Amino acid sequence: MGSTERIRNVAKRVAKWVRAGHQLVVVPSAMSGETNRLLGLAKELAPDAHSAEHRRELDQIAATGEQVSSGLLAIALQAEGVQAISYAGWQVTIKTDDSYTKARIQSIDDARVRKDLAAGKVVIITGFQGVDDEGNITTLGRGGSDTSAVAVAAAMKADECLIYTDVDGVYTTDPRVVPEAKRLATISFEEMLEMASLGSKVLQIRSVEFAGKYRVPLRVLSSFTPWDIPLAEEAVSGTLISFEEDEKMEQAVVSGIAFSRDEAKITVTGVPDKPGIAYQILGPVADANIDVDVIVQNVSHEGRTDFSFTVTRGDYNKTLELLKNTVGPSVGGLDVSGDPKIVKVSIVGIGMRSHVGVASKMFRVLSEEGINIQMITTSEIKTSVVIDEKYMELAVRALHKAFDLDAPAAA
Amino acid sequence: MGSTERIRNVAKRVAKWVRAGHQLVVVPSAMSGETNRLLGLAKELAPDAHSAEHRRELDQIAATGEQVSSGLLAIALQAEGVQAISYAGWQVTIKTDDSYTKARIQSIDDARVRKDLAAGKVVIITGFQGVDDEGNITTLGRGGSDTSAVAVAAAMKADECLIYTDVDGVYTTDPRVVPEAKRLATISFEEMLEMASLGSKVLQIRSVEFAGKYRVPLRVLSSFTPWDIPLAEEAVSGTLISFEEDEKMEQAVVSGIAFSRDEAKITVTGVPDKPGIAYQILGPVADANIDVDVIVQNVSHEGRTDFSFTVTRGDYNKTLELLKNTVGPSVGGLDVSGDPKIVKVSIVGIGMRSHVGVASKMFRVLSEEGINIQMITTSEIKTSVVIDEKYMELAVRALHKAFDLDAPAAA
Repeated sequence: MGSTERIRNVAKRVAKWVRAGHQLVVVPSAMSGETNRLLGLAKELAPDAHSAEHRRELDQIAATGEQVSSGLLAIALQAEGVQAISYAGWQVTIKTDDSYTKARIQSIDDARVRKDLAAGKVVIITGFQGVDDEGNITTLGRGGSDTSAVAVAAAMKADECLIYTDVDGVYTTDPRVVPEAKRLATISFEEMLEMASLGSKVLQIRSVEFAGKYRVPLRVLSSFTPWDIPLAEEAVSGTLISFEEDEKMEQAVVSGIAFSRDEAKITVTGVPDKPGIAYQILGPVADANIDVDVIVQNVSHEGRTDFSFTVTRGDYNKTLELLKNTVGPSVGGLDVSGDPKIVKVSIVGIGMRSHVGVASKMFRVLSEEGINIQMITTSEIKTSVVIDEKYMELAVRALHKAFDLDAPAAA
Repeated sequence: MGSTERIRNVAKRVAKWVRAGHQLVVVPSAMSGETNRLLGLAKELAPDAHSAEHRRELDQIAATGEQVSSGLLAIALQAEGVQAISYAGWQVTIKTDDSYTKARIQSIDDARVRKDLAAGKVVIITGFQGVDDEGNITTLGRGGSDTSAVAVAAAMKADECLIYTDVDGVYTTDPRVVPEAKRLATISFEEMLEMASLGSKVLQIRSVEFAGKYRVPLRVLSSFTPWDIPLAEEAVSGTLISFEEDEKMEQAVVSGIAFSRDEAKITVTGVPDKPGIAYQILGPVADANIDVDVIVQNVSHEGRTDFSFTVTRGDYNKTLELLKNTVGPSVGGLDVSGDPKIVKVSIVGIGMRSHVGVASKMFRVLSEEGINIQMITTSEIKTSVVIDEKYMELAVRALHKAFDLDAPAAA
């Protein structure tokens, strides 16, 4: 009941855009809890339902959740007096590769969609799914509906891709950690990409990457906004992820503070400083399908160096074991240690390109708070530090204030 | 839980057939209650969800129930160590016309299925659905999975189409009315067709018609039989609906007693006995989409005749109104009356072809019980009478006994 009520509200919102003269393609996600329910059924029959043997069938099952919400949205729109038609991925066609449960979109045929739009219909495209060359159903993985929406917007050359989520935009940092965090009206695509990869959960990084590749302007806005607020107001709400670096953007040196708790550090000390050593250590890690995030190698002393990297906490023990048992014996004098209680805190801003001293200001702020920095890694528009978990909130709040991101007190 | 448990049992049963060397194509129905749940969601958004405007989307939604159970069965089979692959209707392809919610199968492409069978896989075909020429998903209407199974069996030229249902076969009559009713080991296709059309609910009449058209031997058997009974026993259980009229069949003059409570009688008296009068009465009834079942016209007296027919009870009032308001004025001297509390009781048997006096024996039995016959209609292999509802059980029991259908007392 609660779920169809939400679909009805989406329909009223879509109808509002249509009545204002817009052509709309809508990509709904599954109803709340539906994907988990379906995967749960599969797991009751095969606890290893995600293994390669079962993946094709898992997609055959999981893809139905979005198909149902798409059909329901079409019916809700028709009930609102708006012409609508829904398509499953294979009906569009949305072509993907054949990597079940994490397929990648290869092409979208827009002919059918354009015909319907020209006929005055709202077109509902089932997200999260596609079809491979052999006609097998594929799904795109968690958050895949966002990726579908961006891909469809790219194929249709849409003016804007609106992503309605459960937050009302992108914030300077997580408001649960820093209550003074403020919503950004705009953020550059590159900053958003860093924010997403650094732990901000607003958008799946794949959908941001896709938007970047095809230069689709994205707007993140809240699905909890009442459907009947004026369109002019809704159209500029949320956060626009833009490709136009206007002057306004240049003013802020740092746009946001991102952080990730899901990090664990591995350090290999006393490594012979020889060519090929990084590969000797990280090769087996990659082979074991473990994602490595930050990688730091210090300068060597007396022919030996220290080599550190981070992995997700879930991979921590596995990685330690692996290095001790397989890599250790092959690399002389190696000592492996680690710490699963570390976090990564990052400052992000395209202003960093043209401003010097931003990173050193970060280090000074942390030092003033007595926070020891364990690892540092930088890119053109971000600086990340790895610190002890217990300092995370303190570090984020201090940086947020120091870089003038705190919202002004309410008037 | 209960539902995946049933799917697991189906998988074990299928695996048993596979291990005995059979090639299997399986057409599962949706999980219990799933289709109603999906249609319920649609009705929350549009109370007239079944209207023409919404039907395409309704099929888009309803088709997912079977797709889920097909994928789950594939996973359950894989977990049993049996190779399996599931296909939605459009993947096979199962082509239908474009009558959403009640589409008819036009063709089935068996190439993909044969290839998988040859590769040693069990092929699971999603029932109840297909795809029209434009690539829209269609569904076949209630009981459509049975029709899909028969159609697939026909396309594959299967040895037998096994329909696992919630009863263990076709009975001489409904055991809830006559406890002595016995299961038929075989029944001819024509008898089954009559039984289905006369109210026996074991199989949807469309699936029986389909089996007849393509001469697919059908076996009705119980899904509640433990999966691990010996295959030799299961293979001959239930009721075989056969096309071979062997001697054994000829022995029974009457194979079963069917009855239908969903009947109401309309009588038009004092109708001028002129050409075209039947059409003048039934034309408007057909135009109003009312299904007419038994039709009887008596011989005329003094240029006037009586004309009676039956409709379902749900259509009774509508039909009475229609005849009084529209047909009445155009046909002189007409008087319309009716009775919604009547039932139809039928004896069915291909033996009636070669035996005389079967119908009169039926009339004698009913007369001996003091039951008045209101209407009679016959075909080559059945005789139906319309009687007062209150005599139904009495009539069915008396006929069941008189035609030697009562099972012998347990030894």
